[in-house]
Amino acid sequence: MTEYNRLSAGERRSKAAEVEARLEGFREEKLDLDMTRGKPGSDQLELSNGLLAAVDAKGWKTPSGVDSRNYGGLDGIEESRKLFGDYLGIAASEVIVGGNSSLALMHDTIAQLMTHGSSTLAKPWWGSNPAFLCPVPGYDRHFTILERYGIRMVSVATRESGPDMDEVERLAAADPTIRGLWCVPRYSNPTGYTFSDETVERLACMKTAAPDFRILWDDAYAVHHLGSGPAKLASILAACRKAGNPERPLIFGSTSKISFPGGGVAFSGGSEKSCAWARERLFVQTIGPDKVNILRHVLYFKDIAGILAHMEKHARILQPKFAAVDRILTRELSGTGIATWTRPQGGYFTSLDTSDGLASTAVKLAAGLGVKVTPAGSTFPHKKDPRDRNIRIAPTFPGLAALEKATEVLAVCIQRAALAGS
Amino acid sequence: MTEYNRLSAGERRSKAAEVEARLEGFREEKLDLDMTRGKPGSDQLELSNGLLAAVDAKGWKTPSGVDSRNYGGLDGIEESRKLFGDYLGIAASEVIVGGNSSLALMHDTIAQLMTHGSSTLAKPWWGSNPAFLCPVPGYDRHFTILERYGIRMVSVATRESGPDMDEVERLAAADPTIRGLWCVPRYSNPTGYTFSDETVERLACMKTAAPDFRILWDDAYAVHHLGSGPAKLASILAACRKAGNPERPLIFGSTSKISFPGGGVAFSGGSEKSCAWARERLFVQTIGPDKVNILRHVLYFKDIAGILAHMEKHARILQPKFAAVDRILTRELSGTGIATWTRPQGGYFTSLDTSDGLASTAVKLAAGLGVKVTPAGSTFPHKKDPRDRNIRIAPTFPGLAALEKATEVLAVCIQRAALAGS
Repeated sequence: MTEYNRLSAGERRSKAAEVEARLEGFREEKLDLDMTRGKPGSDQLELSNGLLAAVDAKGWKTPSGVDSRNYGGLDGIEESRKLFGDYLGIAASEVIVGGNSSLALMHDTIAQLMTHGSSTLAKPWWGSNPAFLCPVPGYDRHFTILERYGIRMVSVATRESGPDMDEVERLAAADPTIRGLWCVPRYSNPTGYTFSDETVERLACMKTAAPDFRILWDDAYAVHHLGSGPAKLASILAACRKAGNPERPLIFGSTSKISFPGGGVAFSGGSEKSCAWARERLFVQTIGPDKVNILRHVLYFKDIAGILAHMEKHARILQPKFAAVDRILTRELSGTGIATWTRPQGGYFTSLDTSDGLASTAVKLAAGLGVKVTPAGSTFPHKKDPRDRNIRIAPTFPGLAALEKATEVLAVCIQRAALAGS
Repeated sequence: MTEYNRLSAGERRSKAAEVEARLEGFREEKLDLDMTRGKPGSDQLELSNGLLAAVDAKGWKTPSGVDSRNYGGLDGIEESRKLFGDYLGIAASEVIVGGNSSLALMHDTIAQLMTHGSSTLAKPWWGSNPAFLCPVPGYDRHFTILERYGIRMVSVATRESGPDMDEVERLAAADPTIRGLWCVPRYSNPTGYTFSDETVERLACMKTAAPDFRILWDDAYAVHHLGSGPAKLASILAACRKAGNPERPLIFGSTSKISFPGGGVAFSGGSEKSCAWARERLFVQTIGPDKVNILRHVLYFKDIAGILAHMEKHARILQPKFAAVDRILTRELSGTGIATWTRPQGGYFTSLDTSDGLASTAVKLAAGLGVKVTPAGSTFPHKKDPRDRNIRIAPTFPGLAALEKATEVLAVCIQRAALAGS
């Protein structure tokens, strides 16, 4: 296709007329399509139905002999710490298993840092004007938690190798109110990029003005690949330990997109000292997690090989959906110069950047045609994309035909936004 | 038996010798018994094994058609709000279902009051020197949460009708830093007492100097009776609504001691405005609770009649245990004037008061003989019983023979403590 900014006035008018006609066609279809949420499709959920029967009236005892039905086990059952330790690439002693929502674990971490400080410095962050580095575009729910606690958000650009590390190092070293960084290091939300070894190394080694700088390492898509197996990611915990900053990383994960979002298991990881600090407060906060459901996951997946084999099945469902998004975006937008997008090898999103200033117009147009896309701006702190260009596409939930239609509508809406005034 | 303080010197010496001989006998038995935790026995857990199969590969849809396996449903599934609303005697619209631990819900409530204030006054309690009224003896885990957030605890005596309301009203009206009261209104931990209608009414109507006074109403044992059906308890929500203080009560409950402590469902209740306030923050805090497990409970228990019928089975197991404790305490301590105890009609504990100053000595003696009892003082703020007299007995977990032995040992240890120096 011709770049839009090389079109003659006549070509622009003719293109605009063609786009209008297509929009009118979509309007007549009375569409009702949803691409907003990083949500598994029903066919993906079917893959884990066996989990529902994994613990029965005779099978409630853990392999090591604990009655999963009764009280006890503040950090999950022993076998689950091994399983999810293997999953995160850390030792069982560096894992705490709890609840069904890693977002809840992350929220709790921020809340506790605010009210009680960290394992390095037992002094509340409250009242100290704390700030976090936020690679953008990023995950809206991370930003919302920071916002709720009045933690300032300092945006840092994202490269294919991870956050702009020159900028991260400069800011962390200069400003003691910068207390941490939040990231999705593998198949990042929404770009799909994975941190390079150099990025991990620099995050582990960098000097920070804050004595208890924390990296909230949301490894949400650790095994959620589409192509040739999970992307390699260097161990942040090993790198930080080696660099003499063992308490720096706080790692999170869950089975929400492995088993069930509405019935999975979440877990966190960190140094043994971090875990001891967490266990101490967990004793005050809860009677402990649902051990029966944790046991279901241990018995159903058995080991990390079991999880990886299971993820192949998810990949087979998801790969065609991501391919369809790319195929349609290529057909509609390649060469136009008005949009670029990522081609993720894993995770749950495709990230699309329009020319500056087009995103919110395009998303609104699509909504008017019955195609819901995550609101423009959502991937930035306070929901404000300074260049109004990023759109997060979530291809997983709709069926293939609906997804293709929704992507086409969005792409034509982007064309329409670019041609506005023609 | 003769009152100990009427014994002659000779009688005391002979009694002391007899007690020593019995202690020596216990020592030779090398006991290892545990009466510390309000924990169901294995036979009680067996009652709910059917729950494990309540959701299977074909049954994951809620009655109203929601896929329990996927994202969504921040406050549980519709049918669960109805079920636990009936359980708490409030409307479904006044219920939020979430997680497996009511202690976690209560902790979160306190944490959020500290950092964000209440539905009545959106101003953090942080830095305002807040205090709570604590009826004593009470539940140690309530006190530990207050302690963690630096909330001062003001003890109030407990009567059979509930807290000393003259004192509660006086303190709440006089001091604006007193922001709330924590209680277990039915079959209270540890006394087993249930609040009278007058107590509920006065709690609802009383003037408080704090504009957003909160009653944390931990209805942990709402249906956990031993005798002739659950004790009646007036509705704190209805009373507060009528008194013009609808936001005052925050109600909590769980199925920990109905189904499984390690795999149950917790819920909270309050006015619709309170619930709206909570849902707003829950959206930031979590992706939502485990809907599959909530659905299990809905399908297994069906309705409040199903829960009540199920509780009859628990009662049949527990009643003989509580009776045994009372029988042995009566045999060993009645008429001695050195101990009184409660005869609960429900709940999980018997509360025993020794003569002043004996409790910690008796508990330590018992521990030395292999009988673990909750540490003396645990039922008071900061674990300090000013009169060193209260002992919490938890009869539910040990088998009947073990329980009888443990109670006997404890009773003889109390005798020993009372005779010390003879």
